Amino acid sequence: MLMSMPQRILIAPSGFKESLSAEDVADAIAAGVRRALPGVAIDMAPIPDGGEGTAYTLAMATTGQLVRVRVHGPAGGTVDAHYARLGGAASGTAVIEMAAAAGLSLVPRDRRDPCATTTYGVGQLIAAALDDGAERIIVGCGDSGTCDGGAGALQALGARVLDSTGADLPPGGRHLARAAFLDLSGLHPRLADVDIVLACNPNNVLCGEKGVAPVFARQKGATDEDVEVLSHALKNWATILERDGNPVADVRTGLGTGASGGLGAGLAAGIGATLLSRFDALLDSGLCGIDLDTRIGQADLVITAEGSIDFQTPRGKVPAEVARRATDAGVPVIALAGSIGRGAAAVHDAGIDAMASIVAAPMSLADAVANGWRLLSDAAEQTMRMILIGASVASRQNGRQAVAVGG
Amino acid sequence: MLMSMPQRILIAPSGFKESLSAEDVADAIAAGVRRALPGVAIDMAPIPDGGEGTAYTLAMATTGQLVRVRVHGPAGGTVDAHYARLGGAASGTAVIEMAAAAGLSLVPRDRRDPCATTTYGVGQLIAAALDDGAERIIVGCGDSGTCDGGAGALQALGARVLDSTGADLPPGGRHLARAAFLDLSGLHPRLADVDIVLACNPNNVLCGEKGVAPVFARQKGATDEDVEVLSHALKNWATILERDGNPVADVRTGLGTGASGGLGAGLAAGIGATLLSRFDALLDSGLCGIDLDTRIGQADLVITAEGSIDFQTPRGKVPAEVARRATDAGVPVIALAGSIGRGAAAVHDAGIDAMASIVAAPMSLADAVANGWRLLSDAAEQTMRMILIGASVASRQNGRQAVAVGG
Repeated sequence: MLMSMPQRILIAPSGFKESLSAEDVADAIAAGVRRALPGVAIDMAPIPDGGEGTAYTLAMATTGQLVRVRVHGPAGGTVDAHYARLGGAASGTAVIEMAAAAGLSLVPRDRRDPCATTTYGVGQLIAAALDDGAERIIVGCGDSGTCDGGAGALQALGARVLDSTGADLPPGGRHLARAAFLDLSGLHPRLADVDIVLACNPNNVLCGEKGVAPVFARQKGATDEDVEVLSHALKNWATILERDGNPVADVRTGLGTGASGGLGAGLAAGIGATLLSRFDALLDSGLCGIDLDTRIGQADLVITAEGSIDFQTPRGKVPAEVARRATDAGVPVIALAGSIGRGAAAVHDAGIDAMASIVAAPMSLADAVANGWRLLSDAAEQTMRMILIGASVASRQNGRQAVAVGG
Repeated sequence: MLMSMPQRILIAPSGFKESLSAEDVADAIAAGVRRALPGVAIDMAPIPDGGEGTAYTLAMATTGQLVRVRVHGPAGGTVDAHYARLGGAASGTAVIEMAAAAGLSLVPRDRRDPCATTTYGVGQLIAAALDDGAERIIVGCGDSGTCDGGAGALQALGARVLDSTGADLPPGGRHLARAAFLDLSGLHPRLADVDIVLACNPNNVLCGEKGVAPVFARQKGATDEDVEVLSHALKNWATILERDGNPVADVRTGLGTGASGGLGAGLAAGIGATLLSRFDALLDSGLCGIDLDTRIGQADLVITAEGSIDFQTPRGKVPAEVARRATDAGVPVIALAGSIGRGAAAVHDAGIDAMASIVAAPMSLADAVANGWRLLSDAAEQTMRMILIGASVASRQNGRQAVAVGG
């Protein structure tokens, strides 16, 4: 009897927030898979989602480099940020991860106030990549600690945001209520020649009931009152962008205009950035050198992962995106998760064929995080063992059929 | 392409202690399996282990009956106990579950004292089955709250246990230090004609360093001092059993003599009971109508389960026993567990091909127990989904090979 088993497995996980990078997750899964099936070919494709880790993941994936830049922090002071100078076929592309300069994790918990934080450092990173000769720039959105409509980033790139007296606005989204003029005459000269693409969650929009202030500001530290202040300020900012900025189809409710606290709207109208759905920008387009679809097509099985799998997963999270592509290619997909939560069954409709939690016993979140790598690796091993059992059952039955046919 | 998948699955779990009966566990697993693979044939074989639930499981398995009997409780008072009158091919067999009359869970937490508790009620259950006309009796050991060497059970069956003054000993293991005579002349008359088989953990012995007092008395509530008292008392009791009882090969350290606080030794020497390893007694021997080996042989896949899987599992727990038999038959085995603990990897050597925890996210033990049925069912569904993925991968490859051969 010939036992058929997976020959090539694609490991395409997200990172686990505040616990394991996408690379760590992929390593842990690969270690477990190899314990169960030592000879299998493994293709490692940690998947960036635009947020924390995106620049590192893409630098690693393309044998590029991380460039360190000290920039203004989101809540004052300076932070040691970085961007990625991609390598290989993606040479000439720089990847800015906005969270590296203005991420929520860079704002001390006791100072989280999205009325005050700024994306100034993001503009500095873009300027650094321009100065470095980048031919195209991808700005990953996600995990932001800001809600300044990208005004800070524009200021860092040479724009002036003025109040009605002609004075420059200070940092912070709350001041956008007083914005009266946007002067783009002093923008960085290379911006005219370089394509800027934002990798956005397409559902995030600048204004309205589903705007970035009511939907996201609270998790960045806003009070209910702050949400009102920011909604009002961003509405005024939209008016200024519409009048003084580059033409944008719909700066208030267009795809991704609310990404990273309105950075999408600001960079689209301010410097002509293109807003793309994040996975279109990061996984397709040839810009980033990942070429996920081709690699899915070469695999017998795809294993993806994310910290949490629940009702939100089908709404644009990494496992759902990987599953969508694998389903198109007819390749089965397994998802591993630190936590399988409410409504997770919906992921089967999104193309995830099976899922497993890494939690091996009742334990606290802290214990699960502290032992994440080992738990993940063990779960991957057991998952592969299940796959091999299924393959063995099928092979036995094929054997029986062969006997039946032959006999 | 023909997709081969499991046609018949045997579900052979243990119960989850203090949470789900073996029947509940099997039901939950079956529900999950059916969600993943609606058409599959499922054979339900909840596995008794001699302890709590054994009588019920065997009554259900043979379409027998539970007979209610009010007996003396292990710590005084009365308890509503039961035994099983088996049906079908096992008619004539009664199954006594010692824990139903003298289990640890019948002793209030604040009164747990194995120096004082008695197996008197176990003897009453045996007497009731004898009065009912049972042709053979199986006594399941496990989950006991006693350490009286079976003296109480013998007294209930008509034996007298006397001190040197000729007075009957009161209930409780501590008094065995004063045992001077065992008078078997008044035993229940049917005992001479009825086979009594004890289903024991074979590793449990009456005396010595690995005797029942040092190994088990503490979990029944004994202090270190109590352990000394009981060790001394049981040693004296062994001397009396050797002199006044039926011949037993090795009443001190023979297989199962220490089962259920020495009930094994007491019933072997006192009424000529046969001590068998519990799974030999309960699953083989045709006595109980389960016929596990035949049913394993008819299955493509076996799913077993237990509350905890860890380094102790290979030492005679239900999943290891099921796996041993399935391995002999060449049928793959999956184990589901509420908790996968330290040293669990050893179960692979014991024949368990893969395992999965039912815990879907970081949570407390109380939450896991409260949601046990649903978690187990979900884990079974995902497990089956993994199996189907494995089968699908194998089928695809067989398809490719067929193409390669044919082309």
